[in-house]
Amino acid sequence: MIKVDTRHLSRFVGGDELKQISHLTKAAHKSLLDGDGAGNDFLGWKDLPVNYDKDEFARIKKAADKIKSDSQVLFVIGIGGSYLGARAVIEALKSTLYNNLKKSTPEIYFVGNGIDADYLNEVISLADGKDFSVNIISKSGTTTEPAVAFRVFRELAEKKYGAYAKSRIYATTDKKRGTLKELADSEGWETFVVPDDIGGRFSVLTAVGLLPIAAAGVDIEQLIKGAADERNDLLETDPLKNNVLIYAALRNIFFNKGFKNELLVTYKNSFVQFGEWYKQLFGESEGKDGKGIFPVTATFSTDLHSLGQFIQDGAPIIFETVLKFDAPLNDYYLKKLPPEQDGDGLNFLSEQNLSVVTEKAFLGTIIAHTDGGTPNIVISAPKPDAYTLGALIYFFEKACAVSGYLLGVNPFDQPGVESYKKNMFALLGKKGYEDIRQKLEAQIN
Amino acid sequence: MIKVDTRHLSRFVGGDELKQISHLTKAAHKSLLDGDGAGNDFLGWKDLPVNYDKDEFARIKKAADKIKSDSQVLFVIGIGGSYLGARAVIEALKSTLYNNLKKSTPEIYFVGNGIDADYLNEVISLADGKDFSVNIISKSGTTTEPAVAFRVFRELAEKKYGAYAKSRIYATTDKKRGTLKELADSEGWETFVVPDDIGGRFSVLTAVGLLPIAAAGVDIEQLIKGAADERNDLLETDPLKNNVLIYAALRNIFFNKGFKNELLVTYKNSFVQFGEWYKQLFGESEGKDGKGIFPVTATFSTDLHSLGQFIQDGAPIIFETVLKFDAPLNDYYLKKLPPEQDGDGLNFLSEQNLSVVTEKAFLGTIIAHTDGGTPNIVISAPKPDAYTLGALIYFFEKACAVSGYLLGVNPFDQPGVESYKKNMFALLGKKGYEDIRQKLEAQIN
Repeated sequence: MIKVDTRHLSRFVGGDELKQISHLTKAAHKSLLDGDGAGNDFLGWKDLPVNYDKDEFARIKKAADKIKSDSQVLFVIGIGGSYLGARAVIEALKSTLYNNLKKSTPEIYFVGNGIDADYLNEVISLADGKDFSVNIISKSGTTTEPAVAFRVFRELAEKKYGAYAKSRIYATTDKKRGTLKELADSEGWETFVVPDDIGGRFSVLTAVGLLPIAAAGVDIEQLIKGAADERNDLLETDPLKNNVLIYAALRNIFFNKGFKNELLVTYKNSFVQFGEWYKQLFGESEGKDGKGIFPVTATFSTDLHSLGQFIQDGAPIIFETVLKFDAPLNDYYLKKLPPEQDGDGLNFLSEQNLSVVTEKAFLGTIIAHTDGGTPNIVISAPKPDAYTLGALIYFFEKACAVSGYLLGVNPFDQPGVESYKKNMFALLGKKGYEDIRQKLEAQIN
Repeated sequence: MIKVDTRHLSRFVGGDELKQISHLTKAAHKSLLDGDGAGNDFLGWKDLPVNYDKDEFARIKKAADKIKSDSQVLFVIGIGGSYLGARAVIEALKSTLYNNLKKSTPEIYFVGNGIDADYLNEVISLADGKDFSVNIISKSGTTTEPAVAFRVFRELAEKKYGAYAKSRIYATTDKKRGTLKELADSEGWETFVVPDDIGGRFSVLTAVGLLPIAAAGVDIEQLIKGAADERNDLLETDPLKNNVLIYAALRNIFFNKGFKNELLVTYKNSFVQFGEWYKQLFGESEGKDGKGIFPVTATFSTDLHSLGQFIQDGAPIIFETVLKFDAPLNDYYLKKLPPEQDGDGLNFLSEQNLSVVTEKAFLGTIIAHTDGGTPNIVISAPKPDAYTLGALIYFFEKACAVSGYLLGVNPFDQPGVESYKKNMFALLGKKGYEDIRQKLEAQIN
């Protein structure tokens, strides 16, 4: 369903280059399919769309229905992979203005994804006078940012609902052990599972993402079905016929040609957060061992009036991957005005849908940027609905895994994320970090 | 008021490097002060904070008061520099959740900054049943994206308010000529000025930004006062004593050492849109003639759980500029829980403000990233209020101008932005573009 269009690349990629790299792409793919590559303890996402826990899935839908029926607001507490996926899907399918639009589903606010006091205070104020539920998402329960926020929102719930608070707190956490799991069991909160074999950035189609997504009224069956169908499509072993292998190979080719930034472009305001999900997926998977394509994002045509100049004429360090939908969910028809009201000269655009203008902007931009020396890969998809988004998620997850293997890294670990935490804990005086603290304080002074 | 802290750079910048480049920095600064450099028709921003139109300023405040008194919603229509500045300031000072928080000022939605039909439909639905005003911001009135949106919202206003619609439409446009100016004069809309000598990306402190900012309840006197005081600070001619010259010199040094991306980091969710403003300011000013530092942004600690891995261990192509506030507007006190409720082990953080945790995360992160090979410039400011934000805006504008001169480009033009527009017009069949159309269609087929 997801297609990679290489038509605009002839200026940058020679006729045989994809073929020349194909034995590598094939080997990377085989390693992923066979499960014998680096990080192969974390391949649970691979078969997830056809191999998920059906009982838990039914419980997720039931819990989402309860939240929809008894809550005006849902607070979702998590960071990194326990935050970005759900927010990306909700905004992509329900609008970046979701919390402001008229709707029958609860407002959803994400919190515990940082340590900004102003933001925490603001989100707290949103609970005021409203019925709410809380979904805490944390494998261990001890990650600082979500744990701080959960202390706050748990207290708010218990103050407001007393003994009934427990029916409004949902914990997505380790299946068997850990601080949050123990707490949830002893308090009687319903729990959902963060699987052991799926890393945070690959977890959006587990309960981690699905509970908030379902609470927003998204059809999660369609989301999973799209992912399952795309999974099937991408089993194709011919590296020149499989769209995800073509995409991964092109990324590798551009990286080796010196284009060190990949700019993921969409023409949809609602995909800004999908871009944030993509940045974690690829940045955390590839950015290691001194290597990696740096993932950046843009929304066109908005950012043609901000980053467009750089892409057109600036340093040649960027290749663009344009995620293009064939149609919007709801088009807008441009009426013709009487000639005397055509002072703005826009009648030449009228008597057609706005999506036609988008289409021409898309084509015109690709040609302009290509002429300017910036390669444009196009990934096309039918329309931004739940089924297609499920497919896109699977497509990018698999593209990321194959890309990591092509780059020669373990795409499933993230050792570098620990460094700041270790320093932060030491500076905050956490027990067990006394030696590091002394060293750091000497370094600071 | 705005300080540049170079303490963490010793590993990357030798003791004499800033001195060695100082004759260039000094020359760039002199050229800017004397107004004899490239693009010197567009230096109106330089003295704007002490040389603005006081009568218009008073009219802006009056119009904002009227909007606050008669509108539940303000639609702000503009793209690029006619969009990003106002949104950046409103979110930075009033929260990224501004439209959801309880307040006495109107909701503010930005539209006409793209060509996404779904988004346009959504914003239209937000006018439903509410009293609203419209601020159209366009120098010419013919830029496609805002002009399309303005047709829509003008019609909505005229349908709802009839002859009274004209008192709810505000046009920020050219002083004397152009489609929008003519239309506004003939329809009787109040107009404000997009100055001739200030480019879009430098225009946030003109009426372009100030009207929506004032309508959101921001004290625009303080904003301008901060900019004026900072302007004065930055007149210092010694390149080793002037913070903005030190910052511009460091950017140039890192670019020449191969760090091609500048990552602007804040620890505030409300500064995401400030990052978008920064991206246009620097990207459009420097990204030309095959040169330029590519501007990217991150919000920590959120993005330490997404881009943190890359920054720590990935390809060494990024330097960080961390914008750090000494304090939040409103802190949050972390209570100690009884030992039996300390299952999450967070009591070691308690009995202090959350901002202390932010401070330690900030320090711990700088040390970790520096150890990982990523340079960290720190820009510090007192707190995120209107006065400080005005100062920051002026600081970054001047930093951008000096940086452009150091790079040897004209920081005030944007010739590359025209390329996509030309192609788009041709493909849409606009009159006068027939030749290009033929060429493009041959290229596509």
